[in-house]
Amino acid sequence: MTDIEDVLARIDQDRDQTLTEFLRLLEIPSISSDPSGAAGIGEAAGWLKRKLSSMGFEARVVATEGHPLVLAHSRAEESDPGPRLLFYGHYDVQPVGDEDQWSHSPFKPKLVEEAGVTRIYARGASDSKSQLWSFIEALRCWREVQGRFPGQVTILLEGEEESGSASLPAFIEAYRSELACDVAFICDSDMWSPTQPAVTTQLKGLLHEKVTLFGPNPDLHSGYFGAVAVNPIRILSGLLAALHDSEGCVAIDGFYDNVKEIPADLRTQWQALSKEAHQLDSADLRGGLVEHGYTPLEAIWGRPTLDFNGITGGNQGPGERSVLPASASVRLSFRLVDGQDPADVREKFRHFIRARVPEGCRVEFEGSEGSRAVAMSPDNPFVQAVARGMEREWSTPTILKGSGGSIPLAEMFSDVLGIDCIVLGFILSSDAIHAPDEHYDTLRLHKGIRSWVRILDEVRTLRG
Amino acid sequence: MTDIEDVLARIDQDRDQTLTEFLRLLEIPSISSDPSGAAGIGEAAGWLKRKLSSMGFEARVVATEGHPLVLAHSRAEESDPGPRLLFYGHYDVQPVGDEDQWSHSPFKPKLVEEAGVTRIYARGASDSKSQLWSFIEALRCWREVQGRFPGQVTILLEGEEESGSASLPAFIEAYRSELACDVAFICDSDMWSPTQPAVTTQLKGLLHEKVTLFGPNPDLHSGYFGAVAVNPIRILSGLLAALHDSEGCVAIDGFYDNVKEIPADLRTQWQALSKEAHQLDSADLRGGLVEHGYTPLEAIWGRPTLDFNGITGGNQGPGERSVLPASASVRLSFRLVDGQDPADVREKFRHFIRARVPEGCRVEFEGSEGSRAVAMSPDNPFVQAVARGMEREWSTPTILKGSGGSIPLAEMFSDVLGIDCIVLGFILSSDAIHAPDEHYDTLRLHKGIRSWVRILDEVRTLRG
Repeated sequence: MTDIEDVLARIDQDRDQTLTEFLRLLEIPSISSDPSGAAGIGEAAGWLKRKLSSMGFEARVVATEGHPLVLAHSRAEESDPGPRLLFYGHYDVQPVGDEDQWSHSPFKPKLVEEAGVTRIYARGASDSKSQLWSFIEALRCWREVQGRFPGQVTILLEGEEESGSASLPAFIEAYRSELACDVAFICDSDMWSPTQPAVTTQLKGLLHEKVTLFGPNPDLHSGYFGAVAVNPIRILSGLLAALHDSEGCVAIDGFYDNVKEIPADLRTQWQALSKEAHQLDSADLRGGLVEHGYTPLEAIWGRPTLDFNGITGGNQGPGERSVLPASASVRLSFRLVDGQDPADVREKFRHFIRARVPEGCRVEFEGSEGSRAVAMSPDNPFVQAVARGMEREWSTPTILKGSGGSIPLAEMFSDVLGIDCIVLGFILSSDAIHAPDEHYDTLRLHKGIRSWVRILDEVRTLRG
Repeated sequence: MTDIEDVLARIDQDRDQTLTEFLRLLEIPSISSDPSGAAGIGEAAGWLKRKLSSMGFEARVVATEGHPLVLAHSRAEESDPGPRLLFYGHYDVQPVGDEDQWSHSPFKPKLVEEAGVTRIYARGASDSKSQLWSFIEALRCWREVQGRFPGQVTILLEGEEESGSASLPAFIEAYRSELACDVAFICDSDMWSPTQPAVTTQLKGLLHEKVTLFGPNPDLHSGYFGAVAVNPIRILSGLLAALHDSEGCVAIDGFYDNVKEIPADLRTQWQALSKEAHQLDSADLRGGLVEHGYTPLEAIWGRPTLDFNGITGGNQGPGERSVLPASASVRLSFRLVDGQDPADVREKFRHFIRARVPEGCRVEFEGSEGSRAVAMSPDNPFVQAVARGMEREWSTPTILKGSGGSIPLAEMFSDVLGIDCIVLGFILSSDAIHAPDEHYDTLRLHKGIRSWVRILDEVRTLRG
């Protein structure tokens, strides 16, 4: 086994330069779900391609119907024998939302000393530019010190993760031979706590729906017609209120039909973890209704949910307008668990709504295909190797955890490429991801890069 | 009694010029509830002041804490003996809403031949520039032909009617001696049908409320926290759904406590009218839930309602954002009937909401004082004189009707000035007021002006 102390020393030595370059990446406003982000997407893809080329990769930007991907391979003559490793990250970020809610400009990264660390405030600082930057810098240092990469390395950086990954399925199909590998690392997940690393072995599926309810009229004067004409806001509110019961369950007929119950031994482990559920500390859970019969951690990791993400209708201000609106709409998302088929859930949901739309009203649905949940065995050798590597860096056991989040890619990789996917990362739920004032910290950035070197050291002797 | 045939002939002769000038008024974007309309408000006030001055009035623009009023008096030497007449109109207009829903640019008035008339499409074409223009042109022709006005005339044109009339109470108090009169005509109401005139003797009160529900957190990732943290959209939907019962009644405790039941003889008249309720034809009422036990016309004119005017929360698009929003808000309005006190209704409403807000959530209310309902006796001599005048122009009986709409001014005039208020006008509920493609027609504009001449002829011999 190669001595990796020299690689770790190089990482320590390069710490400032690594951070400076990371801040440059954070300045690029690569918002994927908003047309305003198109320029930032292109800029980020080009910037990352140049970075990977400078590190010895054969790198290129691959156009898609949507946003481009960055694809890079290590040269055979610079790759040690060993497993073929695929690293996945995404360079796109969430929209900023209401910028007035930010204390720091989302694309002017700011370093602030607080909570005992140096925090980096920027959109994408945590989700997910920090994550791709961590394995990139680990690979750079490894090659600079050792002269070669620790195996055949492929890097895939996506630009549509935050907007539904619409172009990814066709890309994976078309590039399946180039993507062939023994294991894929999906680097977009979180730690158990600021001091305890984790591998995520259970991911939820995701299904987005937008429902627009149209009344039979254009906007009407609420005085003239409020007493007699249908009000789409009133109807929509009633529909949304009917979607959950008083025990926190989703009230759609058949919603739980194919749900696989959380395995008994996993429940035992998770219930032990519940006592120190650091992940839950970052939000105030008062008023929340957890599904009856489950702990909060079980509900997040192992139970399907329905969440309302946005609602709009009628007068948006600033002034008063006495109107019965012509329509009202809601954006919502389902988080699915093992056993649930997104298409089946979508049909049941749409049936629930259609059956309750009053005469004269019309409903329109928009939505994506959705993705299934993914579960990995704790006995998988790559899972175990990754867990060992992280344990060495953090000097504490690695937690095998679930996630309330969704990575549709994991489903595609296992379906199309037939490979194991290891989902890991150094995000914390307290990083305000998807929210104003998203942040990361320089300690995690540094130890994340070091963790990758230790993981590579464990993984390089395995075969897929 | 003066022969008014010459005045009517002048109106006929000036028909094109009257229309051309009216279109100029419609070009001014005098939106009162939106800061973007401030320039248009000032322009409209100045334009109308010059118009009134040119007609022989002593006219001026009166500044307020909000938007200015235009105030004009006829000179004593140019006023016939007779009752002191106050004409009220408003020159401000509703916001345009989503301009994409308009077929014609809201402030570029367009004449279109359709439905057997020449329609004028523009914001404010009906509500309410056509109404003030009708009495102004009637007074202009009267004086030009007769040499004098048919009584001491005061004209008051408001610029905040569509945004809550915040400055009007203080103005009326401060100018009460200047506004002293025998009768006030509030010219902002509608006909019974395109061929049948009406006086509105019952007006509803109005109370606006904006409710914002804050969860205990900033925006959160819906995957990480959807299963456990409170979702303000979900809570707000539940609150709104609970505000009406299954029989169409408002479910707030005590909401109906002081409601005066519609008098039995009025119900009889209205039930006869219900058979030809033209006003209801302009909207598709399928799916609407009318309060149990009342006809649609009774519900509109005589029963209090609660209407949701706008709702906002979380992701407003265009892309998906998997967020649990920090807050959600609704704008709503109550239409009140005789006996209800706006302050009392507001307190009961706020109590209803506060009692249902979950732990950890916070609710904020914004709202105006609101106004009471107003009812006029059908036996009032001015009501009868106006009804006779309109009957002569339209050759059909004048309907004494109610309205689902609200004119807070009527309450103020009767409270502060102690005068009778006659509410009339030539609007139709099919004019798409407060909505895209608002319109009026040139026939009603012309006959409205003629109607005023006939009304003045009936009224001039009365005393207050």
